[in-house]
Amino acid sequence: MQFSFKKLGISSGAKRIIVLDDEDAFELGVKPGDRVRVFAHTVQGMKIGPGKIAIVDIATNNETLPRGTVGLYDEVYNQLELSDKYNKISVFLSSKPTSFNAIKEKIKGHELSSQQIQEIVNDCTNERLLDIEKAAFIISLEVRGATDREVVDLTNAMANSGEILDFGDEVYDKHSTGGVPGNKVTLIIVPIIAAAGLFIPKTSTRAITSPSGTADSFEVLAPVAFSKTKVLEILTTEKVGILWGGALDSAPADNALIRIEKPLTMDPFPLMIASIICKKIAMGVKKLVLDIPCGKGTKFPTIEDGRKYANRFKEISTQVGIQTVCLLTNASQPIGHAVGPALEAREAMRLLKDPTIGPSSLRNKSCELAGILLEMAGKAQEGKGKDLALEFLNNGKAYNAMKRIIKAQGGNPDIDPEKIEVGPFMQEMIAIGDGFVTSVENKHINRIAKIAGCPAAKKSGIEIERKIGQKTKRGEVIFRIYSDSKARLDEAVEYYNAHLPQILGGMTLERI
Amino acid sequence: MQFSFKKLGISSGAKRIIVLDDEDAFELGVKPGDRVRVFAHTVQGMKIGPGKIAIVDIATNNETLPRGTVGLYDEVYNQLELSDKYNKISVFLSSKPTSFNAIKEKIKGHELSSQQIQEIVNDCTNERLLDIEKAAFIISLEVRGATDREVVDLTNAMANSGEILDFGDEVYDKHSTGGVPGNKVTLIIVPIIAAAGLFIPKTSTRAITSPSGTADSFEVLAPVAFSKTKVLEILTTEKVGILWGGALDSAPADNALIRIEKPLTMDPFPLMIASIICKKIAMGVKKLVLDIPCGKGTKFPTIEDGRKYANRFKEISTQVGIQTVCLLTNASQPIGHAVGPALEAREAMRLLKDPTIGPSSLRNKSCELAGILLEMAGKAQEGKGKDLALEFLNNGKAYNAMKRIIKAQGGNPDIDPEKIEVGPFMQEMIAIGDGFVTSVENKHINRIAKIAGCPAAKKSGIEIERKIGQKTKRGEVIFRIYSDSKARLDEAVEYYNAHLPQILGGMTLERI
Repeated sequence: MQFSFKKLGISSGAKRIIVLDDEDAFELGVKPGDRVRVFAHTVQGMKIGPGKIAIVDIATNNETLPRGTVGLYDEVYNQLELSDKYNKISVFLSSKPTSFNAIKEKIKGHELSSQQIQEIVNDCTNERLLDIEKAAFIISLEVRGATDREVVDLTNAMANSGEILDFGDEVYDKHSTGGVPGNKVTLIIVPIIAAAGLFIPKTSTRAITSPSGTADSFEVLAPVAFSKTKVLEILTTEKVGILWGGALDSAPADNALIRIEKPLTMDPFPLMIASIICKKIAMGVKKLVLDIPCGKGTKFPTIEDGRKYANRFKEISTQVGIQTVCLLTNASQPIGHAVGPALEAREAMRLLKDPTIGPSSLRNKSCELAGILLEMAGKAQEGKGKDLALEFLNNGKAYNAMKRIIKAQGGNPDIDPEKIEVGPFMQEMIAIGDGFVTSVENKHINRIAKIAGCPAAKKSGIEIERKIGQKTKRGEVIFRIYSDSKARLDEAVEYYNAHLPQILGGMTLERI
Repeated sequence: MQFSFKKLGISSGAKRIIVLDDEDAFELGVKPGDRVRVFAHTVQGMKIGPGKIAIVDIATNNETLPRGTVGLYDEVYNQLELSDKYNKISVFLSSKPTSFNAIKEKIKGHELSSQQIQEIVNDCTNERLLDIEKAAFIISLEVRGATDREVVDLTNAMANSGEILDFGDEVYDKHSTGGVPGNKVTLIIVPIIAAAGLFIPKTSTRAITSPSGTADSFEVLAPVAFSKTKVLEILTTEKVGILWGGALDSAPADNALIRIEKPLTMDPFPLMIASIICKKIAMGVKKLVLDIPCGKGTKFPTIEDGRKYANRFKEISTQVGIQTVCLLTNASQPIGHAVGPALEAREAMRLLKDPTIGPSSLRNKSCELAGILLEMAGKAQEGKGKDLALEFLNNGKAYNAMKRIIKAQGGNPDIDPEKIEVGPFMQEMIAIGDGFVTSVENKHINRIAKIAGCPAAKKSGIEIERKIGQKTKRGEVIFRIYSDSKARLDEAVEYYNAHLPQILGGMTLERI
């Protein structure tokens, strides 16, 4: 059936929804939730392309849509590239894709063939699989796992679901499996590596569940979101960038699965590996250092978990042509003191400008990770990479490289770290007794930062003044909360008082 | 935040969708796909009830919605019971329900506590779980199974998610696990049981994946869809009914899961048991005969599979207070000859009016199942139930009971079976050689009936003229296809010729 269309001006975030008049739907034999294939037509009636898969909602009211008109959500409208020339659309009932049979086999515990994995990935790319079907695939990997062969196939298929960039053989990158607050090491590592003259095309996501992603923090210093053309121009010219990866649309099949993994709060081992590596393949990365924070609240509660993952990751990445070194790191408390986009940008810029002031945890971790890349590049002997990284930090070359990155991306390279705006509302939290910090609850740190407005409110966040092992006296400032709004600050303070993120030892607990 | 609202006149089928202006969404900290809690307000600002959970889409265009106005899909609008009095709504970001933690434990293979099962069921009832989260629960049961204790808890919790009717201790029912075409035995069994003076409140669903459900077929003879009040009136007065169960909204948690099971094409054992039994509890059923068709294309490919299920079903149903007898039945070909709402109604009415003409498969199977209920009621000795059922059929009492049911539901009790309209387009299919039918492909039978228009086009369907073991001569009619549309008939004939549903043996296959 051929229809006129109406742009509804509604976005579902990702799902492609079309709204059919109820009588049209009846005639097509289509029920709400059914999957249809939609084609754009020219005035002459010619179809373009293979059509797009969409999900049907039904107009129950004649005022919503006249018969013969299909309502389009933004996702469908944009995908169909409709125009004056393509001003009609056709809708056909679409069958369940055969890739779902493969998913059901995986649920039963069978190993999938390369062909089956390719089919699943194709149907993720073209959004032919429903959300619940993608969820079934994710859960099947969670329960049944996958062989190395399957993970390699999945990685390659997801990488090839979009464009693969090629910047030659010497392309470096760092990545973190996440889970530790204030992990702003990327903002230190990238300028060190650039200072060494190595190509590092760092693309990052924005924060989804954490208070700040690298893209969110760097955006305080310079824009990060560019068109694909501009991204390629920056990288080709500068051999470095700290960019939001969204515009590149690399490995779209991976993105389709991530959109379901996040709300499912599931990240099965095989997919966790394939997802990181496929994005690196797409960015043309050849040498990678992987930061694997281990401990409570991360994906790897024990070092043994992290080690298992690291070995598997190295195996898979080698098989797809990426050399990887993994570093298991301590995730017991934030790296540095600051959490939140502006506070993290400020802390990183302070360290780059004057490395002697620290914080030492940020300096150490950054230089260890950067040092590994320098060793992989042959810039330093094994065991000497960290020293070289420190040298680039101490001699100001990393700071100069950072300025160059900021300038190339349209920011102010001469920004004074002390002029980076935070707050403006701030509350200092005071120790209620003498003692020392015995442990830190990352979960509460993240929660407080988010209640204060992170990551959307860039000036919100926290500073942890006393970290594990540090002594404190009653009345001293041990924590600061910043927020763009007084109301949010009050809420964050309330949460802080109910869930103290720093555990103080050596105190009298109670006297009766 | 408090909003005006606009009814969008769109239905998603089940999901509760609200559309927020993009700036309102930003202020609420809500992204597309997020879960929110929505409250209706009076003019004085008073909330009613605990609010309803909804999923957020975003208006990207100021013409779609002005700021401060929320667009409501039908499902949300109806649930909130908005009116002139309740003319404002509030929207709050809602957290992931804790029941999802229980689902993740089941995925890991842990046994769930009664409390955890209750929480999951509650969150299905109030639609607090996302579709992908419900899918995760279904898949977890598929992969991990469940203990009898878990299934009993699930059954009771789902039954209690809606109203439980009480018609006393002597309430009978039959049910089929499905998978065999033309299984119109309910249209014979219910009048037999009613003729014996037993209470049988038969509620059925409409066909979802098959060419005709009991509700679809009986609707050819009389209306089946009534308000809850009317359903209760019919059942209380007549002690019998053949009704569409939808209006009763019994076991809504079960319905919420079924809506996900169908597109997932998954029906895990524990849920299959709980789903049937919880609906029987809700209808106040105390004694049940369960028809379990076994064989290719059913849920039980082998008799051993059926036996396992039957034993488990009996165990669970006993534990929740329902006495059940299971009958494993032959699913190798259709019961009787007719498939499709009107054709099945006609075949059943013909048998009731003159049991001597058959078809014998329909008469036998119906009387065996009805006989078991008669034995359970003490109306016949064990082993003699079938004879008594046949007696009710042969002496016309079952036919009279059927007339009474048709009349009570507003149909014409004196309808002549031969006046039941079928077609009007019909094509006879001819044997292309001599031979006998060695096997029948139910899958093709169903497909042909559906291509011809079933179940929506009630007069469409098929008649299988030669069944397994029957001889046929070249040129004889072995199959008939009926359709309400010439185009659909042609398509069905084309499918028939490409996928012959009857396999003829004893023929020369080829002469070269």
